[in-house]
Amino acid sequence: MNPSYEPKPEHKFTFGLWTVGSTGRDPFGAPVRLAKTPAELVYLLGEVGAYGVNFHDNDLIPIDATPTEAEAIKKDFRKALADTGLKVPMATTNLFADPVFKDGAFTANDPKVRAYALQKTLNAIDLGVEFGAGVYVFWGGREGTETDACRNPADAIQRNRDAMNFVCEYILDKKYPLKIALEAKPNEPRGDIYNATTGHMLGFIATLDHPEMVGVNPEVAHEHMAGLNFLHGVAQAWEAGKLFHIDLNDQYPGRYDQDLRFGSRDLKAAFFLVKFLEDVGYSGSRHFDAHAYRTEDYEGVKDFARGCMRTYLILKEKAARWNADPEVQAILAENAAEDGSLAGYFGKYSPAKAVALRAHPFDRAAIAARGLKYERLDQVTVDLLMGVR
Amino acid sequence: MNPSYEPKPEHKFTFGLWTVGSTGRDPFGAPVRLAKTPAELVYLLGEVGAYGVNFHDNDLIPIDATPTEAEAIKKDFRKALADTGLKVPMATTNLFADPVFKDGAFTANDPKVRAYALQKTLNAIDLGVEFGAGVYVFWGGREGTETDACRNPADAIQRNRDAMNFVCEYILDKKYPLKIALEAKPNEPRGDIYNATTGHMLGFIATLDHPEMVGVNPEVAHEHMAGLNFLHGVAQAWEAGKLFHIDLNDQYPGRYDQDLRFGSRDLKAAFFLVKFLEDVGYSGSRHFDAHAYRTEDYEGVKDFARGCMRTYLILKEKAARWNADPEVQAILAENAAEDGSLAGYFGKYSPAKAVALRAHPFDRAAIAARGLKYERLDQVTVDLLMGVR
Amino acid sequence: MNPSYEPKPEHKFTFGLWTVGSTGRDPFGAPVRLAKTPAELVYLLGEVGAYGVNFHDNDLIPIDATPTEAEAIKKDFRKALADTGLKVPMATTNLFADPVFKDGAFTANDPKVRAYALQKTLNAIDLGVEFGAGVYVFWGGREGTETDACRNPADAIQRNRDAMNFVCEYILDKKYPLKIALEAKPNEPRGDIYNATTGHMLGFIATLDHPEMVGVNPEVAHEHMAGLNFLHGVAQAWEAGKLFHIDLNDQYPGRYDQDLRFGSRDLKAAFFLVKFLEDVGYSGSRHFDAHAYRTEDYEGVKDFARGCMRTYLILKEKAARWNADPEVQAILAENAAEDGSLAGYFGKYSPAKAVALRAHPFDRAAIAARGLKYERLDQVTVDLLMGVR
Amino acid sequence: MNPSYEPKPEHKFTFGLWTVGSTGRDPFGAPVRLAKTPAELVYLLGEVGAYGVNFHDNDLIPIDATPTEAEAIKKDFRKALADTGLKVPMATTNLFADPVFKDGAFTANDPKVRAYALQKTLNAIDLGVEFGAGVYVFWGGREGTETDACRNPADAIQRNRDAMNFVCEYILDKKYPLKIALEAKPNEPRGDIYNATTGHMLGFIATLDHPEMVGVNPEVAHEHMAGLNFLHGVAQAWEAGKLFHIDLNDQYPGRYDQDLRFGSRDLKAAFFLVKFLEDVGYSGSRHFDAHAYRTEDYEGVKDFARGCMRTYLILKEKAARWNADPEVQAILAENAAEDGSLAGYFGKYSPAKAVALRAHPFDRAAIAARGLKYERLDQVTVDLLMGVR
Repeated sequence: MNPSYEPKPEHKFTFGLWTVGSTGRDPFGAPVRLAKTPAELVYLLGEVGAYGVNFHDNDLIPIDATPTEAEAIKKDFRKALADTGLKVPMATTNLFADPVFKDGAFTANDPKVRAYALQKTLNAIDLGVEFGAGVYVFWGGREGTETDACRNPADAIQRNRDAMNFVCEYILDKKYPLKIALEAKPNEPRGDIYNATTGHMLGFIATLDHPEMVGVNPEVAHEHMAGLNFLHGVAQAWEAGKLFHIDLNDQYPGRYDQDLRFGSRDLKAAFFLVKFLEDVGYSGSRHFDAHAYRTEDYEGVKDFARGCMRTYLILKEKAARWNADPEVQAILAENAAEDGSLAGYFGKYSPAKAVALRAHPFDRAAIAARGLKYERLDQVTVDLLMGVR
Repeated sequence: MNPSYEPKPEHKFTFGLWTVGSTGRDPFGAPVRLAKTPAELVYLLGEVGAYGVNFHDNDLIPIDATPTEAEAIKKDFRKALADTGLKVPMATTNLFADPVFKDGAFTANDPKVRAYALQKTLNAIDLGVEFGAGVYVFWGGREGTETDACRNPADAIQRNRDAMNFVCEYILDKKYPLKIALEAKPNEPRGDIYNATTGHMLGFIATLDHPEMVGVNPEVAHEHMAGLNFLHGVAQAWEAGKLFHIDLNDQYPGRYDQDLRFGSRDLKAAFFLVKFLEDVGYSGSRHFDAHAYRTEDYEGVKDFARGCMRTYLILKEKAARWNADPEVQAILAENAAEDGSLAGYFGKYSPAKAVALRAHPFDRAAIAARGLKYERLDQVTVDLLMGVR
Repeated sequence: MNPSYEPKPEHKFTFGLWTVGSTGRDPFGAPVRLAKTPAELVYLLGEVGAYGVNFHDNDLIPIDATPTEAEAIKKDFRKALADTGLKVPMATTNLFADPVFKDGAFTANDPKVRAYALQKTLNAIDLGVEFGAGVYVFWGGREGTETDACRNPADAIQRNRDAMNFVCEYILDKKYPLKIALEAKPNEPRGDIYNATTGHMLGFIATLDHPEMVGVNPEVAHEHMAGLNFLHGVAQAWEAGKLFHIDLNDQYPGRYDQDLRFGSRDLKAAFFLVKFLEDVGYSGSRHFDAHAYRTEDYEGVKDFARGCMRTYLILKEKAARWNADPEVQAILAENAAEDGSLAGYFGKYSPAKAVALRAHPFDRAAIAARGLKYERLDQVTVDLLMGVR
Repeated sequence: MNPSYEPKPEHKFTFGLWTVGSTGRDPFGAPVRLAKTPAELVYLLGEVGAYGVNFHDNDLIPIDATPTEAEAIKKDFRKALADTGLKVPMATTNLFADPVFKDGAFTANDPKVRAYALQKTLNAIDLGVEFGAGVYVFWGGREGTETDACRNPADAIQRNRDAMNFVCEYILDKKYPLKIALEAKPNEPRGDIYNATTGHMLGFIATLDHPEMVGVNPEVAHEHMAGLNFLHGVAQAWEAGKLFHIDLNDQYPGRYDQDLRFGSRDLKAAFFLVKFLEDVGYSGSRHFDAHAYRTEDYEGVKDFARGCMRTYLILKEKAARWNADPEVQAILAENAAEDGSLAGYFGKYSPAKAVALRAHPFDRAAIAARGLKYERLDQVTVDLLMGVR
C-alpha cells in the first residue's frame, strides 16, 4: 500500500516529450502555451516525479535541423537526463507530421515516400538506441485512407510487412537490444487506418519474419475510440507474450482522439486495467500518452502529469483491496467451483475423452437456474472504487 | 456482365435458416411473422434463387427435440434440399440462446457449462457434416462480460483456446473435411465480447495448436458496429490466407446489431467490399446474415432476400466497370509510378542496402508537393456507383 | 449526510414494473427468470426500500386480458401497494410491443394504427390516474424508420403533434392532475427514432398547443447511446422548467440499449448528474429504468435494485463534500472573478451599451495567458469520487 | 432534369473561405497547401461555378490586422466578388481559434472573455452586413467543457441566452436585414459542447426574447458524429419554420470531424436529404462546409468543390425520378390508404370524439398482419440510386 500515492522510480511512470510538451494547438485553435525545449521538458518531468521520458525523432531533433543544431540539442537533453536521473525507455519515429507522409509512410503509393520513411526510421532507431531506448514503437498514423479507391488494402499490408521485416533485420544486424511495439488506432488523422486495433496488430505480427521481436503498444484512447473493451485487448496481448509497452490515457468512446488524463474519463475501466497489469506482474513502462486540457498553463500541465500518476497509484491500492476482499473472493470461488467429476473432459483431446463427454448427462435447467451474483460483485467493486467499503 | 442481375448457383449466395426464418421479435416487441419449419424456409430460399442454406444446430433441431422428432425434421429438410438443389455449405452451434449459456459457453466460469458447450458442439459438428457442411463457424455470442469483475480475461482466452484445440483434434480424429471459421463481434448480447474484432480473431488463431485449420468469418455489421473499416479487416484475413467464410449484411455504426439487407446502409463500403472479393477471386460462400425489417410479411422477406443478391450483382458489375475505367487506372498508375532508381532499397534486407538507402538524398518538399487526385478518384467512383458515368 | 446509504421515501426512488420484472430475454436469448406478477414485484420493491413503482398499461394489464382478469390483477396490485406503502408516481402506454405498432403508433402510415394508438393511450391514461400517477410518460419507441423512403419525416412530426395535442385536451377535459413527460431515444428498436434526443423533444414541445403541460423525461442510457453529455441535456430541460421526470440507469456509448445499474458504467457522469439534481433541488422521482444482468436470479435482481439506490446516495454525499471543498470553491471563484469594470456591458441591450462595449480595449494575450486549473479541479473531483480526499 | 449536372446560380451553391482555403493542417500534421488570399479563393470558387462565398470575420480580416491592412484586403475581396459575380449570403464570427476563447466565448467563466466575445461579434456582424450577408451563423465551438467541474451547465445556457438576446437587439437596433442561424455540434474541439444537436438548438431558441429572428444551421457532419439521422433533424427545423441555412458535407459516424465532400460517405442519407430540400422547396443556400483531403493540391481542391455540387445535382435528378416512380408511389399510397371511417377521430379534440374513438373496435391482428413492403421500397430506392432502374 502507498498511502501517499507519490510516484517512485519503481513505478516506471514515463511521459513522451510530446505529452507535457503539447502547446494546445487543435484543429480549431492556435497554441495556448509557448513551446519548451526538450531539456526544459525533462526538468519539468523530473519535478513531478516521472521515471522516464520518450520521444519521436522530431520531438528531439527538428526534421530540418542541421547536424550542429542536433548536437547542441542532444547535449542539452543529455545533461537534463543526467541532472534529473530520467531514463529514455522508448523511442519512435514521426512518420505522420511532414507533408511528405500525406498518403502514408510505409504504405504510401509513391515508392519514394516508402523509401524515405525507411531511411528516416533507420536514423531514428539509431537515435533511440543512442539514448538507451529498449522498446521501439511504431504508430502508423498516416497508414490509411479516406477513400479505398486509392489502394488495394492487401497491398498496404504487404508493404507494411516488408518495412517491418526490413527494420527487424536492421536491428538484428546492428545487434541492438531493441524490441518493437506496434500501436494501433482505428482512425484520425486518416479516415481509416490499417491494422485498426491491437487485435489486428497481433494478427499482423504472426505473419512477420521475426514475430518474436515484435509485440504491441496498446493505447487506452485508441481502443476506446472504437468502443472496444481495452482490458480485453491488453489481456490478449499479455497472454500471448506480446505486451511490450502500454500507453495510458483516457477517452470518451466514438470521438476525436482526446488523450485525456489517465482515469479522468472511465474510472472503472482504468481500475480493471491497473488491476490486471499489477496482478500479472507487467514490468514495462507505464507510459502516459496524454496531454493537459487546452485551458491550462504549465502549472496545469504539471497538475495533469501528477494526476495521471496519482490516479494510477490510487487504483493500484484499490486493486490490492479488491483482491483481499472476502466477499469478492467468495463469489468468484463459488461460481468456479467444481467437484472434479468433469475433470476428465478437459485438457488434451483423446477419442475416449470425446466419447465420455458425449455420454455425460447435463441438467441444463439446473445449471442455468443458479444466480451468479455479478450485480453484487460489481456493486462491491463500485463501493471499493468510491472508498465506501 | 450480368444485366439481369439474376442469382445463379455460381454466385454462391447462401442464407442462414435464422435469416429468412426470423419472426421479427426484438427486445421491445413480439414476433410479427409466424415461424416456418426448416423445410419451408428451404423452399422459400429456392424460390428466390439462393445457392445454399446454413444453420445452427437448433435452427434445425430444437434443443429439446426427441430423437424421433429430430429424425422427422431431418427427413423433411433433406427432401427440401433435394427438391430445391440447395446446398449446406456451412453449419454452426447455438451457444448463446439457452439460459445455460448466460455466462458464456467455452469461457463460462462454471466448468459444467464449459463441458456441456463442448458436448453440444461435437454433436452439432456431426450434424453439420451429415448435411455436407465444409465450413464450421464459431460465434461466441455469450463469451464476454457485463463487468470485468467476473473473470480474468486472460483465463477466458485460455479456456477459449482449450476448447478450440479440442474441437480441432476432434475434427482431425474424425477425418472430417471441415475448416473452422471464427466470427468476431464487439458487443451484444454481452456488454463486451472477447476477441472483439476479426483482427483479434487472427491474433488468437496464431496461438492455436492447429492454426492451419482455423480462419475467420468476418461480418459486415459486427465490424461496422465498432465503426471499423470492414474491407481492411477482410483484406488482412484474405492476405493471410484466413478468409474461410464471410457474412454479408449492413449496419449503421455505433448501434445495436441491425443485420440489414446487404448494401442498404453503406453502398460505398459494399462496393469496395464486393470489388475486393471479386478482384482477388474469393471462391467461398457469399452468406447473407441479415433479416427483413419487422414491417414485413413473408413476401417482404423474399423482397429482402432478393435485394441482398441483386445489390451484390449490381456492385459486381460496377466493380468490373471501375477496373476498366481509363481515368481510374491512369490516376492509380501515376501515383505508383517509379523509375526504378529506388528498387535497390526494397526487398530483403542487407547491410549494404541499408547503407545505400541512408545515403540517398530525398527532396521532401518536392515529393510532398504532388497532388494525388484522390478527390477526383473518389468522385469518379461515386459517379460510377450512381450510374452516371 | 447519510452514512448508511439506506433508501428512504423522501429520496423518491422508483422503479418500473418492467425493470425488476425483466425476465432477461434479449435478441439472442431466452428468458432466464420466471415472470412475476405485478403484485409480487411490488412486494419485491417494498423489500428493497423503493418509494414507488411505475408501469406501462400492459405491464399491469396484459393487452388481451378480459375485464374480469383486469379487475383481479388490479385488486392484487392495489393490495400490494397498500401493504408496502409504495406509490405510483408515473404511468405510460406500451405503444411498441404489439405487432400492430410495427410501423409506429402516432406516426404510423396506417390511419387505423394511429387511431388505435390514441384509443389505447386514453385508456392507459385513465389507468394511470386511477392509481394516482401525476406524470404521464411518452416514449415513442416505434415512431421511426429503417428507411426514410417510407414516410416524409415532416409528416411524422405533424402526426405526433396532433396526437400530443389531442391527449393534452383530453387531460384538460377530464381535469386530470397530470403532466406529460416526453422521452427521447435515438434508435432501437427502430433504425432511427424521431425526436432523437431530449433537445429535439424540447424543440418539439415549443410547437404544441399546450407546451405548459408537457416536459421531458430524459434517460441516461438514451443520450449516452448517442455519445451525448447527459447532464447538459438535463440542465437545459431544468433551466427551461421542463424536467418533469428522469430515468436513471447507465450505458456504454455507441451500443445497444443496455439499461445498466445506475452508476455502474460512468461513475463520473453519474456524480455530476446527482450533484446537479441535488444542487438545483429537483423534487421529482428518481426513477431507475434499468434491469439486472441476465446472469442473475431474483436475489441478484434485488442486489441490482439496491445498488441503484445506494450508488445514488453515495454520490449525493460526495456532491455535498464537493460543494464544501475549499480548494474546489477557490478555483471556481478565481476563474469567475470580476472587478465590476465590465458590468456595464452585460444585461439588457441598449445602443449606448453597445457603443461602450465596442470602445473597450481588451488585452487578448493577457486574458488568454491565465491557466484555469481545470486539470487540478478535475483531479480533486476524481479524488473525492474515489474517497481519498 | 439537368443531364449535365453543371452548377448554376439558381442552385445557390456556396462555400466558406475556410473550406477551399483549408491548408490541410490537422492535429497530427503540418499544412500541405500554401495559404491563398480571400480574393484568390473567390476566383477559385468562381472558376468551379459556385454561387456564393461565406466567411468568418478572421477568414477575411486577420484578428491582428491593422485598419489599413483590413481595408486593402476588403478592396481586393470586393473586386474579386465583382469580377466573379459571387455573393456573400452568410457570415459568422470566429469565436474559437484565438487562445482567449480557450474556455468558451459567450459561456466562458471569465467575464472579460464574454464581453470581448460580444464586442468581436458586433464588429463581425457589421462586416457581414457590409458584404451583403442575410444570414448570420453562430457556431459556438468552444462553448463547452472537458470536465463538468468547471461550470454549472445551467449557467452556461443562461449566459448563451443573454448573448443571443443582446445580439438580436443589436440587429434590430441597427435595422439590419439579418436572420440568425445557430449551428450545433456535439463535441470537438471541446470534450462536450452545449446545445449538442439541432434539436437542442430548437429547444434553446424557444427560450429567447426574439425567437422569430433565430433559426438553425444544421450540418450533416455534426449530427452524423453523434450517429443521428440528419434528415429527421432538418425536417423538424423545416417544419417549425427554422431552417435558415444548411451546411452540407459528409462524415463517418462516431469520429473526429471529417468535413468530407458532400455525398462521399453516405450516399443514401445524402439522397433523402436532397430529396427533402427539393421537395419542400427550401430556397436558402446549399452551403458546403467541407474541405479537400490532405492528399490534394489546389487542383484537387477544385475537384473536391466540383464534386460537392455535382453529387447534389445528380441526387436532385434522382429525387425527381423517385417521386415519379409508379411503384414507389403505389406502395406509399397503399400503406396510407384510409376509407374515411376513422376521419372522425382525428383533428381537433372534442369530448364526443374521444368517446367515439374509445368505442371503436380495432382488429389488432388484422391490422398487424399486413406486410408494408418497405424492403421492396428501399430496394427500389437503392436501384434508382445506382442508376439501374
